[in-house]
Amino acid sequence: MFSKILVANRGEVALRIMRAARELGVKTVAVYSEADRDTLPVKYADEAVCIGPAPAGKSYLVMANIIAAANITGCEAVHPGYGFLAENAEFARACADNDLVFIGPSPECIERMGDKASARETMTSYGVPTVPGSDGVVDTVEEARAFAEEVGYPVLIKASAGGGGKGMREVHDPKDLESAYAAAKAEAQAAFGNGDVYLEKLVLRPRHVEVQVLADNYGNRVALCERDCSIQRRHQKLLEEAPSPALTDETRRAMGVAAIKAVRAVDYRNAGTIEFLLDESGKFYFMEMNTRVQVEHPVTEQITGVDIIKEQLRIAADEPMNCADRAPFSPNGHAIEFRINAEDPDNDFRPIPGKITRLDFPGGPGVRVETYLQAGSSISPYYDSMIAKLIVWGENREEALQRGRRALAEFNIEGIPTTIPFHQKVLETEIFQAGEARTDFIEIAFEQ
Amino acid sequence: MFSKILVANRGEVALRIMRAARELGVKTVAVYSEADRDTLPVKYADEAVCIGPAPAGKSYLVMANIIAAANITGCEAVHPGYGFLAENAEFARACADNDLVFIGPSPECIERMGDKASARETMTSYGVPTVPGSDGVVDTVEEARAFAEEVGYPVLIKASAGGGGKGMREVHDPKDLESAYAAAKAEAQAAFGNGDVYLEKLVLRPRHVEVQVLADNYGNRVALCERDCSIQRRHQKLLEEAPSPALTDETRRAMGVAAIKAVRAVDYRNAGTIEFLLDESGKFYFMEMNTRVQVEHPVTEQITGVDIIKEQLRIAADEPMNCADRAPFSPNGHAIEFRINAEDPDNDFRPIPGKITRLDFPGGPGVRVETYLQAGSSISPYYDSMIAKLIVWGENREEALQRGRRALAEFNIEGIPTTIPFHQKVLETEIFQAGEARTDFIEIAFEQ
Repeated sequence: MFSKILVANRGEVALRIMRAARELGVKTVAVYSEADRDTLPVKYADEAVCIGPAPAGKSYLVMANIIAAANITGCEAVHPGYGFLAENAEFARACADNDLVFIGPSPECIERMGDKASARETMTSYGVPTVPGSDGVVDTVEEARAFAEEVGYPVLIKASAGGGGKGMREVHDPKDLESAYAAAKAEAQAAFGNGDVYLEKLVLRPRHVEVQVLADNYGNRVALCERDCSIQRRHQKLLEEAPSPALTDETRRAMGVAAIKAVRAVDYRNAGTIEFLLDESGKFYFMEMNTRVQVEHPVTEQITGVDIIKEQLRIAADEPMNCADRAPFSPNGHAIEFRINAEDPDNDFRPIPGKITRLDFPGGPGVRVETYLQAGSSISPYYDSMIAKLIVWGENREEALQRGRRALAEFNIEGIPTTIPFHQKVLETEIFQAGEARTDFIEIAFEQ
Repeated sequence: MFSKILVANRGEVALRIMRAARELGVKTVAVYSEADRDTLPVKYADEAVCIGPAPAGKSYLVMANIIAAANITGCEAVHPGYGFLAENAEFARACADNDLVFIGPSPECIERMGDKASARETMTSYGVPTVPGSDGVVDTVEEARAFAEEVGYPVLIKASAGGGGKGMREVHDPKDLESAYAAAKAEAQAAFGNGDVYLEKLVLRPRHVEVQVLADNYGNRVALCERDCSIQRRHQKLLEEAPSPALTDETRRAMGVAAIKAVRAVDYRNAGTIEFLLDESGKFYFMEMNTRVQVEHPVTEQITGVDIIKEQLRIAADEPMNCADRAPFSPNGHAIEFRINAEDPDNDFRPIPGKITRLDFPGGPGVRVETYLQAGSSISPYYDSMIAKLIVWGENREEALQRGRRALAEFNIEGIPTTIPFHQKVLETEIFQAGEARTDFIEIAFEQ
């Protein structure tokens, strides 16, 4: 195992990684922006190095500074967390060039999966079901129109380098195609420095169901069941649960097999997520692969007992994963994650940064909180608006719902608005209670 | 299910019960002493009634006040927690006489198990293994001497009405028998108003291993695996774990069968614990039954996923328990509970009440905290010195130890001394790491 690693991130995920490292006896180095100087990860780490001012472009995204910090402090490896440089192949390569282990997949895997259009092609060729889509990048609006007419409207235009809903447009009517195509390209160019887009048949009223995978250097490849992340706002997940209330045991097995096929196709190593769309008939299609740990990984940890971050460290240290002999996994109980953000749900989820004057966490059985904040901390305007993740576990989905209600009521955050009232409303909807939420849930439940 | 219950207790267990009730949609009424007015359970409950001043003899032990509070607020049932009136048959009867369901076993069960000497006899007659002991109460020192000579020294003198080490004496040498007998009787009389004592063969270097049981009115009786509570100070538990590192699967099964036999013998209903001594050869002997929920119940919840308090409510409400169809249980992972007390471990664990100036809890995966305190709260001199219970879970015992270390280091309590440094030392001993701690652990590890 490593003796010291650098955590190239901030916020709750930085603390999450440091806790896992500490349990394994691995020392940690935090890097931080000036704006994050007083946050918990900086205090928690064994050492901390300031790498520049906010915003991220001047600190968390400056590869040279991060690599210098790792070298100066004698780190052997770098954990990128999620966001920032986590899916940046150039950064993974820069780590290797500096004798640092990148705790994640190879740069080649990041690239192959990072280009969403070529990832689709790879998956199709390996027999993983995909949504009917264009053959790679669509270079002209005429090509886009030909594809849409072939598979039928509605279609989805997506950025090849994309993620998080940026550079994505739905087209339901042929007359909107041209403007949507131009808008998606422009947005993709602005967000990713790459304007390439591709097209897919739009699956109507899908669920977003994703499979957590782990693969090591010893031939072990496991699927840690699935997460249902259908409750989204502008393609941003708000609440996730595991297992998905929509899957039969048979579909779960089939989805796990497809996920492992995807992992094998690119000889993937470390933790990753295969995202699928599940349609109303129960068919599923590969959407994309996230080549990093995800915000919602704790729900999987709660129903499998596997510490995903520790497995990432073991795999990167060229050890076999711990949990291989427990596969195949079936879900133990039910877990739900609520993203508690400093946002105003009544005002289109507008982020509202500010100072937290009081912060009391829920406790008792089946409750887990991931945060980097304490009373008196502030939500910085420079970064995402996450305050905490509340994860509840129950023997079954009903108990998880009851616990979620109880724990959300116990959460006491004063000084800024939060998404807690939103989650409380979700729990009271018949659709969610019945396990029937699809990606159009918010529209259907709250905006009629 | 009940619509409203009264919680006849204080501290962390009162909050624990209220949380379970809230998850089941049951309203709660807190009763509190004047000294507890500002504590969390009083704020958390739907209603709260002051039942007198501290100490407990003027409030938490005054049956008439508690029953009046339950009647005035329209409660249907009373949960006694642990301690105070939890094993008081008279209180259970007074509840019934006032049309209140006592959330626990029948008064007859409490009595039969509460008299430790007669409980032994009952168990022996039903084929549950017991330590060789006197036939019930020993009325004279001559009778005691005859028994000791028959089974051989060392022997243990125990109070019939006893618990918590009161009225208990070890006798290793015949010349000490007379004075020990007199001292045990006097102490039993003072503590319980009943000077009856009985004798047992003293099992040398035993482990304390106990089985959590549940039984309902529908014939379901389950054993929820065992807890190892060998780390004690003056017969007070300090740290508990589940499963016991000393049990083979075969012994676990046999102990579960013996526990269910004990439950069946007295037609026990609700939650209870059968305490066994495990000797160095792996043989186990019935010691006593606790007819209530125990401080250490969370470790069992963590390895079984069963919410024991909710099951208590269901059983008392004449519903079948939830978990019967999951029996027989085998442990899922490993859990350890650390009792964090306001005590000075370097000064014979002397309680040191006072004000907590800062209180930060550990978080992240596998960590559960049960407390009733917040920063600014005080530990009252009138009650036990517990600040919080820290419960950690891991995939296996090694991970639970690593997590315990990590979480204890994250716990930040300022203003009063705590037992955290003691627990940290325990985790560093070879004996505990090897799973070899017996009831003489503290003596052997810390007092050589």
